[in-house]
Order: sequence, then structure tokens, then C-alpha cells
Amino acid sequence: MAEGVKLLGTWASPFSRRIEIALKLKGIQYEYSEENLSDKSPLLLKYNPVHKKVPVFLHNGKPVAESLVILEYIDETWKDHPILPKHPYDRAIARFWAKFVDEKILQTLYKARSAKDEELPKIIEEAGEQMKILENELEGKEFFGGETIGYLDIVAFSVAYWFQVHLEVLGVKFLTEEKFPVVCKWIGRLLDIEVVKSCVPPRDKYLAHIKTRIEATTDAAAQCMPL
Amino acid sequence: MAEGVKLLGTWASPFSRRIEIALKLKGIQYEYSEENLSDKSPLLLKYNPVHKKVPVFLHNGKPVAESLVILEYIDETWKDHPILPKHPYDRAIARFWAKFVDEKILQTLYKARSAKDEELPKIIEEAGEQMKILENELEGKEFFGGETIGYLDIVAFSVAYWFQVHLEVLGVKFLTEEKFPVVCKWIGRLLDIEVVKSCVPPRDKYLAHIKTRIEATTDAAAQCMPL
Repeated sequence: MAEGVKLLGTWASPFSRRIEIALKLKGIQYEYSEENLSDKSPLLLKYNPVHKKVPVFLHNGKPVAESLVILEYIDETWKDHPILPKHPYDRAIARFWAKFVDEKILQTLYKARSAKDEELPKIIEEAGEQMKILENELEGKEFFGGETIGYLDIVAFSVAYWFQVHLEVLGVKFLTEEKFPVVCKWIGRLLDIEVVKSCVPPRDKYLAHIKTRIEATTDAAAQCMPL
Repeated sequence: MAEGVKLLGTWASPFSRRIEIALKLKGIQYEYSEENLSDKSPLLLKYNPVHKKVPVFLHNGKPVAESLVILEYIDETWKDHPILPKHPYDRAIARFWAKFVDEKILQTLYKARSAKDEELPKIIEEAGEQMKILENELEGKEFFGGETIGYLDIVAFSVAYWFQVHLEVLGVKFLTEEKFPVVCKWIGRLLDIEVVKSCVPPRDKYLAHIKTRIEATTDAAAQCMPL
């Protein structure tokens, strides 16, 4: 374990996967510990007492929580293969869109999975508008990070991919080539990257997992439920 | 106007004030433009088309939105008088708590101001628990930033101070010396700093403003209402 690097995560969490993609892109060796969110480990509760959520990143025994915060920490600590852009303005733009993904698109996903059938079309429309904004931002680029995968690609991919699976379970074809050609091609390019592919959960297992979670979820609990 | 620095803000917005505190601490000259949120300027709509919110920071004509993103941009661009800590781990901790302030404490404030009378005690209890977590983090320090004001002080002060005024309007004594001695002393220390004092809105005007907003607010609209 290089320099005592450990990650507490769950296989189905896009937030955990973000950290693994970054670690693998940078070639950082790490120990991975799978958490059971129904019976959280003493380590998780000790190191993230505020939110009690994965991922928790441990570096030489010191914890960092919250996936966007962890990504910045990793990028500042291991400087080879930077994931955030170099120039302050480009960094600001990447951070702005990462917030948009987590605070807008992700919240729409939370709404979708706890919505009543009759509420779903309006939420899907909202999701479509948000995804179109992201599509426009990506237009003309290979990746958000330019010619190679970067911070915003890692952040947005995890949510876009997971969103797609959720909506598939809900019976909605969302990220189609017709509606979102730019985003779909970008997801394809990302899935061609070995590191990214290795961090995507097995499709059938994940579909079954999401199906179980959505069926078991009450409206109230869904707002707080991890992915 | 040094290097074309302009801020679109509103006097009552804690998010705008965060940016002004940072700019003043660093001694950066800037042009300030007061927005009317009932009739947003073409400049605001042009430069923050996604959220249409203040603050928007313009540097040589290039816009940055979202207060936490702007603070990082300012700190990376004007390196004198850094506001974020130097070490990556300390930076991660500051960012973690800034997220906690904006995603937890602030959301509780939003709930409080649109709550029915009978819902308020439970929300105040939740706010108390969150503020206690912040109090524990601050214990034994002059400022979150150590011996001088830093990024997290700027972020947390704006919300703590505005929270206090909101609850005063709602008839709740919240941040008392008895319950939160550490936070109260810290607010006192911050108000002793000339730059901070100059960025706090006049108390009576602000109280009246918040009173009007709360009275005019329907439950649904309150969730989206700027401070």
C-alpha cells in the first residue's frame, strides 16, 4: 500500500468509483475496503462521523471525505498526471460544472427515483434540460478535460452513467444517441479507457441492485438514500 | 479597476459578501455592481445563464460563478495573503467544512424560513446540532484558518451571521453565548476585523429586508429564494 492509501467505498457508489478512477489514472496503489451500508464499519463511522457516508479516503491514517474534496486532495498530493486543469480559470470552470452535476443533475436523479409515476415525465424533462446544458458544454471537445480525461469527466461520467441505469430501471430511455449525441459519444470514449471500464460495476448486477433499491424505497427515505 | 475586476452582487447576499471580504483582504481593487434580483441585468443573465444568480465575478471580461468556486479562483490568481491553507490536507479539511456549511447548515436555514410555526422547533434543534458540530471544529482556535481569517472563516461567517438574523426575525434566539460560546466569540473576533465589518449589511436595514422576504414568501418559493 503506497504511502498508506486506503479507500472505504461501495461497489455501487458512483462517488467511490470517482476516487478509484483518479487513483488508477495516477497509478497510485491503494487498499480498497468494501463497506456494507446496512452495517457500517467502525472505521467509516470513526473517519466520517459527520455524514457517515462513503467514500472515505485515508492517507497515512488521515481521513478525507466527500468525493469532490478527495479528488482535489489527490490531485494536489500526487502531482503526476494532473486531473484538474492547470490554469486557474479553467480550474474554476471545471469546479463550476462539477457543482452543477452534483447539485442539479444528481438531485434530479434523486427526485426521479422516488417520484410517483405521474410525476416522472416532468422530472425527466428537467433532467433532459440539464443534460442538454452539459451536452452544449462538451460540444466540440473530446473530453471536458480537453484531449484527455480529467476531473470533470470523472465527476460527470459517474453521474451520467448511473443516471442512465436508474432511468432504465424506471423504464425510461434517456441518454439516447438521437437526443444526446455528444454525451453518448463521450460516454463511449470514456468506456474505451481501460481504467474507467474497470471501475464501472457489472451491468446486470448493478441493474438488479438499483431495481431492488427503488422498489424497497419509500418516498421519504429516497432523498437520503445513497446510490 | 485592477486588471478588470468586477463583481455583480446584492447587498443582502452572504454569497456576494464572501467575495468582497476576500477581495478586500487581498487588497484587490474592484468595481461593484448592485443587482436587482427582481429585474436581473443583461450582464447577470449573460454571464451566469445556468443559475442566473449572484455573485458573478468578472476578471478581464471572463466570468466565474458560485461563491466557493470564485473564492478558489481569487486565491489561485492573486497569491498574496492566501486564504486557503497551504498544505493539501488542511485545504481538504477547509473544503469539507465549507461544503458542510453550504449543504447542511444553509439548507436548514432555508427550511426554517419556510416552516410552519409547529415545524420550527424541530428545525431549530437540527440547526443547533449542526452548529454544535461547527463549534467543536472551532474549539481551541482563534479562527478556522488558524491565527488569521481564512477561506472557511469567510464561508462560515456569512452563513452563521445571516442565520442569526433570520432566526431573530422568526423570534428565535439561536446563537447565544450560553449555547455556542466558541462560535459567538469567533463571530465577535471577525466583526473586529475592519474588512469584515465593512462587508456586513446595516443591521436594521437587513432585519427589515429579511422580515419582508419571509412574510412575502410562500412555502414553495422559499426553497428557491436567494438570501
